[in-house]
Amino acid sequence: MNIFRFFAKESSAPAARDRLQVLLAHERASVGDNDLVSKLREEILAVIAKHVKVGDDQVNVKMDRGDQVSTLAVDIEIPLEKDARAA
Amino acid sequence: MNIFRFFAKESSAPAARDRLQVLLAHERASVGDNDLVSKLREEILAVIAKHVKVGDDQVNVKMDRGDQVSTLAVDIEIPLEKDARAA
Repeated sequence: MNIFRFFAKESSAPAARDRLQVLLAHERASVGDNDLVSKLREEILAVIAKHVKVGDDQVNVKMDRGDQVSTLAVDIEIPLEKDARAA
Repeated sequence: MNIFRFFAKESSAPAARDRLQVLLAHERASVGDNDLVSKLREEILAVIAKHVKVGDDQVNVKMDRGDQVSTLAVDIEIPLEKDARAA
């Protein structure tokens, strides 16, 4: 089951890394400037950073704000070195 | 762009609700019992709860723990009543 085809295009399938992918979508029933996705973005990245140590160059974040749907896609490569993992 | 086909099967497209969907996938390069997705699950739900007030019956959470890939899918319907939104 590959529910992450969205990322597949740019995957380089590194052999010695784990990967964490997050997709977030906010569908609005009415058009508005509700910015839920932006609000959640930093907090979700902070939650992830508590559990995984990654450098900035290993994090790829894409946001797309549409009238009806806003999306956030986060793609993180996690080195397998033991000390690269936070507790 | 529908990157959330995963959810489409069970969508009932309610007219007067917003919807927030989160997909999280952890691909492991080596098989192990790393439980990153479980760790992130409660914290991400807590982050969302800070911004949106939703009842338990409006939240659908699915986890799938495979040898190589663990996934978490969260589907939340958000009532449009003004006072149902947290600040």
